[in-house]
Amino acid sequence: MSKFFSKKHKSLVPYVPGEQPKNSEYIKLNTNESPYPPSKKAIKRAAEAAKWLQLYSDPECSLLTSILARGLKVAKEQVLMTNGSDEILNFAFMAFCDDEHPAVFPDISYGFYKVFAELHNIPYTEIPLKSDFTINPDDYIGINKNIFIANPNAPTGIALSLSDIEKIAASNPDNIVLIDEAYVDFGAESAIKLLHKYNNLIVTQTFSKSRSMAGARLGFGVACEDIINDMNTIKYSTNPYNINSMTMAAGVGCLEDEKYNEDNCREIQKTRKYTVKELYKLGFTMTDSITNFIFAKHEYISGTEIYTALKNRGILVRHFDKEKIKDYNRITIGTKKQMTALVDALREIIAQY
Amino acid sequence: MSKFFSKKHKSLVPYVPGEQPKNSEYIKLNTNESPYPPSKKAIKRAAEAAKWLQLYSDPECSLLTSILARGLKVAKEQVLMTNGSDEILNFAFMAFCDDEHPAVFPDISYGFYKVFAELHNIPYTEIPLKSDFTINPDDYIGINKNIFIANPNAPTGIALSLSDIEKIAASNPDNIVLIDEAYVDFGAESAIKLLHKYNNLIVTQTFSKSRSMAGARLGFGVACEDIINDMNTIKYSTNPYNINSMTMAAGVGCLEDEKYNEDNCREIQKTRKYTVKELYKLGFTMTDSITNFIFAKHEYISGTEIYTALKNRGILVRHFDKEKIKDYNRITIGTKKQMTALVDALREIIAQY
Repeated sequence: MSKFFSKKHKSLVPYVPGEQPKNSEYIKLNTNESPYPPSKKAIKRAAEAAKWLQLYSDPECSLLTSILARGLKVAKEQVLMTNGSDEILNFAFMAFCDDEHPAVFPDISYGFYKVFAELHNIPYTEIPLKSDFTINPDDYIGINKNIFIANPNAPTGIALSLSDIEKIAASNPDNIVLIDEAYVDFGAESAIKLLHKYNNLIVTQTFSKSRSMAGARLGFGVACEDIINDMNTIKYSTNPYNINSMTMAAGVGCLEDEKYNEDNCREIQKTRKYTVKELYKLGFTMTDSITNFIFAKHEYISGTEIYTALKNRGILVRHFDKEKIKDYNRITIGTKKQMTALVDALREIIAQY
Repeated sequence: MSKFFSKKHKSLVPYVPGEQPKNSEYIKLNTNESPYPPSKKAIKRAAEAAKWLQLYSDPECSLLTSILARGLKVAKEQVLMTNGSDEILNFAFMAFCDDEHPAVFPDISYGFYKVFAELHNIPYTEIPLKSDFTINPDDYIGINKNIFIANPNAPTGIALSLSDIEKIAASNPDNIVLIDEAYVDFGAESAIKLLHKYNNLIVTQTFSKSRSMAGARLGFGVACEDIINDMNTIKYSTNPYNINSMTMAAGVGCLEDEKYNEDNCREIQKTRKYTVKELYKLGFTMTDSITNFIFAKHEYISGTEIYTALKNRGILVRHFDKEKIKDYNRITIGTKKQMTALVDALREIIAQY
């Protein structure tokens, strides 16, 4: 730390991204990436856009926004595209939270909510999940704070029902309710269909998981037009050209090929079912995940031991040190072949105990 | 504005980027883009990276950072790559400015400094340029505030000498001195060579102008390791995967082809000289720009009239409404052919008066 670093950040603990090994020796099941390449149309459009990099990208991201909005059946003024969904989350914390409007989120959820709150000196409360790792919607009814909920939640993979989300939104009319749907495409239902009824609702999604575009950094928020305008004020005061032109082009190509993306999601769901079944046989318990990852705990081997033994066998999964979930590992659903390798490795590890 | 927008932002006036017309009818001389395409090596590497978008980009940006650092003759720990240089500027405001460490910058400069200060509620002072639009270095000696200076300055194009920058850095040891060198490659001298002497100095640059990569969004900061660590704390608390993998790859390709970029810069310098000479003949006065733009005022036609008349003829330049510079237009140096078209159009416009 330099002597110039502002005191307001002295206790800031940054987010720690999953390991990104520089070589490709590992079967990478630690950052919830898709095992499938992006759509060929995305690749082709991105390569074409690379020839024109001397020109700034469109700060309004008009073409991509229009196509996406049409697919989501909302007006284009209701959509804001960002540099990954981390950026739209950051914009929401910046735009709507302050001393009078603190934030609230589950104690076990996407680790970045807390970081954003700390970064911007926003008061926040973490509400404990129930012992089965589900969110109790009653905890959020009329809480009168800005609410951030990942749905399905991470790293548990468990979803709230739309009717629960609706109750939360309806009972907090003076506060923002942000539903972070990074993993919605693997089996949950999107709250976008509630937007016409609730002007306090923000839904965020990403192209990173279900659309195989993690490396392109493309996320977005959907909300009523006024809320999008507010977040645009933050965007144009932060980084007007937030999305590069190759990513914009890749996004357009990707949306031209939604069947490909949907087929991949269905395949991942099938592989998830297979993996869950095999892991039960090996003595694991798991949350009821409807995402592209599972959250698994072994009956007698610790979470750290599983993580380390898998890493030694060339398989990376994600382990969190947090007390409440330290017995678990979050394991991304890869291809059937990768998951068979995982199951085989776990069988070996367990046999040695 | 929604009722949810935080009061702290109620008077925030976002940055207004230059017009980005959706069609290509215009000769675009308004956003200081390069008239030359990016290096073929950059295009090729970006297209290759597009095939692997399902994987997150390297949050440490290791390869690109190492290559760039080597070229700059600094340690890789002294470099932080960002999503355009707007992002590194934002990180610097966030990391180092607060109520006890206000910001100071020239009243006529890159318009974003003021926006960042307003966004983060940082007290700031704007110091008037001298009447000839130069910065008076004495205004910054021992000022005991965090200093932000674009060198060469925008939209004037005028540079401070390195010895003046050194005096400013030396006389403010308890404050950050950030030198924004977006336009340095067109004829000015970089303050990077002062870094070994001053631990309070930050130099920022961009791939947008001299390296023909505006659409890729790639900028960076160079400073002592501690300062870079502090800005990394902000980065990892904002957007750890801030740069997408296509841009990283394009950056690497671009640095493999520096002669191409340098040749383009020399060509732009030649075209600038031509343009300046022709514009003097037409009754313009100009600042002594050593950038890829000129800042020009006609002897009897107003800045707005010139701007509008050029736009009507299919040529876009940048006009700022600010009182002190409203007689001027900032005109990007394009190809010789584009500048000949500009000169011809101006000759026509003037002939009609």
